[in-house]
Amino acid sequence: MPINGKTSSANSRWMNSDGPDAGIVISSRIRIARNLAGVPFPHLLEPEKSMEVINEIKKALENKEAADLIGNMELTLMNDLSLLERQILVDKHLISLELLNNFQSRAAAIRDDEAVTVMINEEDHLRIQCLFSGLRLKEAWAVVNNIDDGLERTLDYAFSEKLGYLTSCPTNTGTGLRASVMLHLTGLKITNQLGGVFNAISKLGLTVRGLYGEGTEALGDLFQISNQITLGQSEDEIINNLISITKQLLAQEQESRQVLYRERREVIEDRVCRAYGILKCARILAMEETMRMLSDLRLGIELKIISGIQEKLINELIVKIRPAFLIKTAGQDMSKRKLDIARAGLIRKEFENGHIGH
Amino acid sequence: MPINGKTSSANSRWMNSDGPDAGIVISSRIRIARNLAGVPFPHLLEPEKSMEVINEIKKALENKEAADLIGNMELTLMNDLSLLERQILVDKHLISLELLNNFQSRAAAIRDDEAVTVMINEEDHLRIQCLFSGLRLKEAWAVVNNIDDGLERTLDYAFSEKLGYLTSCPTNTGTGLRASVMLHLTGLKITNQLGGVFNAISKLGLTVRGLYGEGTEALGDLFQISNQITLGQSEDEIINNLISITKQLLAQEQESRQVLYRERREVIEDRVCRAYGILKCARILAMEETMRMLSDLRLGIELKIISGIQEKLINELIVKIRPAFLIKTAGQDMSKRKLDIARAGLIRKEFENGHIGH
Repeated sequence: MPINGKTSSANSRWMNSDGPDAGIVISSRIRIARNLAGVPFPHLLEPEKSMEVINEIKKALENKEAADLIGNMELTLMNDLSLLERQILVDKHLISLELLNNFQSRAAAIRDDEAVTVMINEEDHLRIQCLFSGLRLKEAWAVVNNIDDGLERTLDYAFSEKLGYLTSCPTNTGTGLRASVMLHLTGLKITNQLGGVFNAISKLGLTVRGLYGEGTEALGDLFQISNQITLGQSEDEIINNLISITKQLLAQEQESRQVLYRERREVIEDRVCRAYGILKCARILAMEETMRMLSDLRLGIELKIISGIQEKLINELIVKIRPAFLIKTAGQDMSKRKLDIARAGLIRKEFENGHIGH
Repeated sequence: MPINGKTSSANSRWMNSDGPDAGIVISSRIRIARNLAGVPFPHLLEPEKSMEVINEIKKALENKEAADLIGNMELTLMNDLSLLERQILVDKHLISLELLNNFQSRAAAIRDDEAVTVMINEEDHLRIQCLFSGLRLKEAWAVVNNIDDGLERTLDYAFSEKLGYLTSCPTNTGTGLRASVMLHLTGLKITNQLGGVFNAISKLGLTVRGLYGEGTEALGDLFQISNQITLGQSEDEIINNLISITKQLLAQEQESRQVLYRERREVIEDRVCRAYGILKCARILAMEETMRMLSDLRLGIELKIISGIQEKLINELIVKIRPAFLIKTAGQDMSKRKLDIARAGLIRKEFENGHIGH
């Protein structure tokens, strides 16, 4: 499927909510940065030379002998997509923010299940990412590693024996690996434990970001935890470290929810049911409020207060309620007020089958 | 029916919402103050003498020759009722706050449809009130006037040719008449016009109070408008004056609603539907929030945004959601939190059949 076909639906594989502990670990993501040896980094490239990089990588992706490792990956030039389409791909976490605004001589290939993206001429010549539901960093790493091996059959990577993979930004040099998990930490938020938890995380060499990466707000109590260090640790060490910390966070979050439900059951039920009532009934829903309500609702589904609404739907809605998707669906640009009305309308429709209780 | 039977239901006649303009004019009330000639006012009476007053009025109420004017009115001593039962009668607007706390040697008779109450040894020896749904001050006055005439067949009232009926508090002297309407002025509230409107009303010799009279808050945008002057105007003048002003207020309120619905339709729909969603779903509902939501819901019913919920039910709920009724229903005393949970439970049950749209 060409990439723009992926901008009219919201069913990326990470949304499926079928991975381990996917109720709290919304997604796991691995991405690596690679550059071609002897070619300047993308921001230093002339357009013509950038196109040569794209073509070289295109060939490597289509190489028949590497097909078992790479799979079927069809490249699309970013300037063949509209701003709206690129924004939807960003919202779906399929391409990076970098490709939203700098789209000339840049390309991406997205696997049909939307679990894998290869980006070309982003910050580095190559960014390969895999995104799965639940805590599945190792599986995501295996997929990325395979594609990396497949591409290396024909591509010559910039690599230093001393430093490892060379990258445009030194914070990626070494393994070029960024491993991250998206966590729904609403229990820790409600019990005011997030500050302490994040403080501890940062001391362990990890970074906490909001839903859409650096500088974005933590909408709906969704937090991205990722490694800061790419140098001096092996890929397995980086991944195992994040898995271990994620499991601790998961246990803390689960514990905080159990405590909440045990000690403040009525308050939590009220919070969840009100969120449900507002989502089912409101006629105007701003983005931030909606994310807050969806967070409460997700908690309610996990605690079995709400039935008939799948977590998969909540994941899809994170994308579908964003301005780009709403505008694409409506087929016309909309004011903030119209967006808020369209958002409320979409949610009412999607939640028709939900109900409180078992 | 003995009075305490009236404390386990909430279906007083004023709640029926069947009177003219009952969507906005919730109720009309007429009460008169009368005293027996030659007997000190109640607060100056010894208990024994107070009982004599009760007995004398009891006889007058039961007088066979006046039965066509008075109807069937059975007296109950206030100290035969529990505090909770008296509170429920206050909440239903059937007896005054005065009888809640000062109940020794005091009595009341309530007609079976709960439209008429005769109170004995309240501030005055006799207080006769009639409470109807909608703008029906004249009809209520006719009922009160009949009972007054009936009682006067055997009772000798304290009356001065110069001043009219003598009363314990000089603000009632003259006609002894207090006429009032309970209005739902939510459109004027939302459009910030209440201040100006109330300012104008006070200049016309009228008083604005909250839902439960003097000193109580205007819960749920419900306001009681009544005459301040009892002397120097005839009963008809007082009543016609209040009717005329009520009609003006009614027109202003209707106009403000139409403007709101025309110019801010989505905002009003959102407000109403959110109130509906919260009432249908919340697990904890404090009194003040509930009254606010019920106010929005009442507006929604009037504007036909909400169907399947009768205004009669909203009127009944004003009483049923109050602490006394909830405690009586539960059969045990409850903390604030338990009351808020019971209130939410009651409302969910009552609103089962409601829905948005036609």
